[in-house]
Amino acid sequence: MSRRSTSTFRVRYGETDQMGVAYHANYLVWCEIGRTDFIRELGTTYAELERQGHSLAVAEATVRYRAAAHYDDLVRVVTTLRSVRSRTIAFDYEVERVEPDPASLAHATTTLVSLDAGGRPRSLPAPVLGLFDR
Amino acid sequence: MSRRSTSTFRVRYGETDQMGVAYHANYLVWCEIGRTDFIRELGTTYAELERQGHSLAVAEATVRYRAAAHYDDLVRVVTTLRSVRSRTIAFDYEVERVEPDPASLAHATTTLVSLDAGGRPRSLPAPVLGLFDR
Amino acid sequence: MSRRSTSTFRVRYGETDQMGVAYHANYLVWCEIGRTDFIRELGTTYAELERQGHSLAVAEATVRYRAAAHYDDLVRVVTTLRSVRSRTIAFDYEVERVEPDPASLAHATTTLVSLDAGGRPRSLPAPVLGLFDR
Amino acid sequence: MSRRSTSTFRVRYGETDQMGVAYHANYLVWCEIGRTDFIRELGTTYAELERQGHSLAVAEATVRYRAAAHYDDLVRVVTTLRSVRSRTIAFDYEVERVEPDPASLAHATTTLVSLDAGGRPRSLPAPVLGLFDR
Repeated sequence: MSRRSTSTFRVRYGETDQMGVAYHANYLVWCEIGRTDFIRELGTTYAELERQGHSLAVAEATVRYRAAAHYDDLVRVVTTLRSVRSRTIAFDYEVERVEPDPASLAHATTTLVSLDAGGRPRSLPAPVLGLFDR
Repeated sequence: MSRRSTSTFRVRYGETDQMGVAYHANYLVWCEIGRTDFIRELGTTYAELERQGHSLAVAEATVRYRAAAHYDDLVRVVTTLRSVRSRTIAFDYEVERVEPDPASLAHATTTLVSLDAGGRPRSLPAPVLGLFDR
Repeated sequence: MSRRSTSTFRVRYGETDQMGVAYHANYLVWCEIGRTDFIRELGTTYAELERQGHSLAVAEATVRYRAAAHYDDLVRVVTTLRSVRSRTIAFDYEVERVEPDPASLAHATTTLVSLDAGGRPRSLPAPVLGLFDR
Repeated sequence: MSRRSTSTFRVRYGETDQMGVAYHANYLVWCEIGRTDFIRELGTTYAELERQGHSLAVAEATVRYRAAAHYDDLVRVVTTLRSVRSRTIAFDYEVERVEPDPASLAHATTTLVSLDAGGRPRSLPAPVLGLFDR
C-alpha cells in the first residue's frame, strides 16, 4: 500500500477560466492522468485492461482545493493507492505546483468500481486484483 | 433554505468518453450550470456578481455517481442551497436523467468560498450574503 | 439544400479562458450541438445512427472567429447542410450571440466522412444518404 | 521562417469520445500546447506576453484529420511559424502519433491576431514582432 506514482505536466491555456486559474473540473482530469501513470508503472496500461474487458468506472470523487493553478504552471500529481476491496479500488491524489513557486494545490480521492462488459458492477477480476493487491 | 432551481440540457458528444458514457469530470461542469441558473433565479447573475468584484471559488467538491449518462440523454440538474456561512456557500446537486429513461445519475456537493479581488478568502460581502441568506 | 436548424444555449463558465472569453476550441463543440439538432429535426438522432453502425467522423473543420463570446451569453448556432457527396456530408455553421447584444461570432464548416464499423471510410449507406439527400 | 518546435504528450482518457478516439475539438487544444512550447523556445512565454498586455487571439483555425488518435497514444505536435504580418501571426501544426504505431494524424493551421487591452485588433507590438520576426 505504499505505492505511488508521479505525473508532471503544464497547465493548458484551455484549462483556465475567466477567473484566471485552472477550472476546477480539470483536477479530475489530472487525477486520471495520475491513475493512468500509476497503472503503467504496475507494468500494464489501463488501455490494455479495457481491451481485456476490465473497466473501472469512477463511483465517487472528492476534491479539496487549497490554492489555484495558473496557465503554464508546472503541476505534479502524486497518486497513491489507498485501498483495494472486492469491488472497488481507491486512490488518493496530491496535486502540487512545482513551478514557478511550489505549493500544495489540492487533495483528491476517487473510488473506482469494477464493471462487466454490460456496465454492471462486479467483483474485481483476478488479473486486476493481482495487479493492485500486492 | 428550501430554494432550488432546475437546469435541463442534453449530453454533448464531446462529453462522452470511450466507455460510451459522459466523462465523470463533466458532472462538475453540469453542477456549475445548475449554480448559474440558481443565481439567475435569485434575480441577478453570477456574471454580474463577478463584474462587481464578488468571486466565488470552488473550495470543495464531491460527486457520487450512481448511473451513467449517455450522449444525447436529456439530463436535469436540481440545485439546492445547503448552507450559507460567513465565508462559504454550499450547494447540493441531484443529477437526473429525464429521457430516454428517468434515473438518478449522481449526487454532488460543492462548497464555494468568497474571494477578494486578489484571490484571498474573505467574508461574504453584504450584497452576496443578502442574495443567498434569506 | 435549404435545410437549417437552430440551437441555442448559454456559454458555460468552464468554457471561458483567462482572456475572459469562450475558448476557441469550444466552437467545434457548439457546431456538434448544431449538427446533433439538425439530424434530430430530420426525424432521427445521430445517437440512433451510431447504434445502427453508421458513424460520421469529422474529416475537416474550419472556424473563422469574428467576435468573442462571454460567460452566460446566450449563443445560437444556425446549422446548414452544404453538400452531400458519395462519402462526405458538409455543414456550415453561423455562431451568433443573441443576448446581451446580438452579434455574429463565427462562421464554421465541417466535412464529415462516413466510416464503417472498423473505422474505414466508405460510401454513405443508403439510410444516411436518404436522410440528408432530399 | 524555418523555426519549429516539438511537443509530446499522451492522449487523456477524458479526451476520447464514444467513437473510441480523441474528440476532434481537442486537436485545437493540442495546437495551443504546440504554440505555447514554440514561444517558450523563443526565450519567453505566452503567459509572460499576456502579463505584459500582449494578447494573441485565434482568428482562424483549420484542421484536416487523417487518422484517429486513441487513449494513451503518445502524440507529437510539430509547430512551425508560417507567417508574421503587421497584425497576425500564423502557425502550421503537424499532429503525429509516435506510439504505439507512428502515423500522421492531422494537419492544422491557426492565424492569431494581436489584441489591445480592450480586445480590439491592433498591429503587433514591437516586443512581439521582434520575438517572431527574425
